[in-house]
Amino acid sequence: AYHATSSGATGKLLFRQLFEKESSTYTYLLADVSRPEKPALLIDPVDKTLDRDLLLIQELGLKLIYAMNTHVHADHVTGTGLIKGKVPGVKSIISRASNAKADLVVEPGDKIYFGDLFLEVRPTPGHTCGCVTYVTGDGPDQPQPRMAFTGDALLIRGCGRTDFQGGSSPQLYKSVHSQIFTLPKETLVYPAHDYRGFTVSTVGEEMQYNPRLAKDEETFKNIMENLNLSYPKMMEIAVPANMDTIVQDDRRITY
Amino acid sequence: AYHATSSGATGKLLFRQLFEKESSTYTYLLADVSRPEKPALLIDPVDKTLDRDLLLIQELGLKLIYAMNTHVHADHVTGTGLIKGKVPGVKSIISRASNAKADLVVEPGDKIYFGDLFLEVRPTPGHTCGCVTYVTGDGPDQPQPRMAFTGDALLIRGCGRTDFQGGSSPQLYKSVHSQIFTLPKETLVYPAHDYRGFTVSTVGEEMQYNPRLAKDEETFKNIMENLNLSYPKMMEIAVPANMDTIVQDDRRITY
Ligand SMILES: [Fe+2]
Ligand SMILES: [Fe+2]
Repeated sequence: AYHATSSGATGKLLFRQLFEKESSTYTYLLADVSRPEKPALLIDPVDKTLDRDLLLIQELGLKLIYAMNTHVHADHVTGTGLIKGKVPGVKSIISRASNAKADLVVEPGDKIYFGDLFLEVRPTPGHTCGCVTYVTGDGPDQPQPRMAFTGDALLIRGCGRTDFQGGSSPQLYKSVHSQIFTLPKETLVYPAHDYRGFTVSTVGEEMQYNPRLAKDEETFKNIMENLNLSYPKMMEIAVPANMDTIVQDDRRITY
Repeated sequence: AYHATSSGATGKLLFRQLFEKESSTYTYLLADVSRPEKPALLIDPVDKTLDRDLLLIQELGLKLIYAMNTHVHADHVTGTGLIKGKVPGVKSIISRASNAKADLVVEPGDKIYFGDLFLEVRPTPGHTCGCVTYVTGDGPDQPQPRMAFTGDALLIRGCGRTDFQGGSSPQLYKSVHSQIFTLPKETLVYPAHDYRGFTVSTVGEEMQYNPRLAKDEETFKNIMENLNLSYPKMMEIAVPANMDTIVQDDRRITY
């Protein structure tokens, strides 16, 4: 049975899912509220909704320490550079494999601590060469069920495209099957986007019902090669901007 | 401290929040997955996203027993009548005070059981005369923290309008303060709509930061009288259609 509640409530974790309508992007706020300073992090913040997110963080009395990306996005401009300009001390995080600039570059197996809680870095390339999935920790003092922030590697009943940004369908298939589908079935799947109004899924559900990744590798490759997707309208602005997660260059905010 | 996780995970409750973009409506799916038949209910289903919701229910192996509305919506057509045509045995639910037709009309204090779990009916008129808030049960075998499905009575950092459909700002103020703000501060607030990408709040947060309802009654009335809102475009179709939650009349689906 899937205990598909939308969060592991340990009492320590404060969790919020936030939506940006134009690019259908989810931003995630996590904090350890058992610590007096309430250390917090944002996963995949969007520039346009940053004021909303920072006001919420302030109202909740959290101390933002990390602004992280799952990958170099092509469809929206990351909020990490702007955050660094507004909230002193915040560090941006991205994977080393992304080749993007960040205050902290992380590698497979790294643990990102916020208070007593942590996120584990799992490499899930295939949508881009530097995609990672951040997974909450394993252990009795960590949220149960575990939560996987899958970026565009695994979407609810879907996945990210593999036709540019160093994408590769065999690689994506291998990533999802070896790094995500090996997690406990009740693990909650929180993607970077949803276009149909889903907010959460589980590993077990996607293993069974994902119309692409529940198939064999050959079928998956055929599906991915025949998507005939159009070029993303934000790409020429977003990708160069998102290669630097430290400084938001004003000249880039021209859309 | 606000333990604002998005769900009370008792292990019994399966919970899903689902979004309809056009009207920014949230539909909620709840089920008791500890029971073999997995009895489930939908709160505020939307006609346009019904196929998505019913497929999810089927994939999760749930048995839908109730399709409920928090009130007679003016901005979208309820999915309850269509559900009844597609899933035999489902009963529609609305409050007696709404004067709408339903298989089951509920009154303040009623408990709506699905398996071992239940929702309590709290009267929260003011946006419409028949608005209710459905609150998960109190007790060790019920989800913790409690969850309040507030409809349009209380929105995240906002509230529903009070200028038609029998609306009344003094009544809404009284409803929220006596029926919602008296719940434990960590109670999760799940509204019928959000227009800015928030998915959940807590009673404590809204008591402190709701820009309308955290104010005194006089200020609230002034705010509500000066909103200058335009007439909702769906109203003439939605309200007559939604007065009957049992049968979806095809002639009404003309938008
Ligand atoms: Fe992407
Ligand atoms: Fe309404």
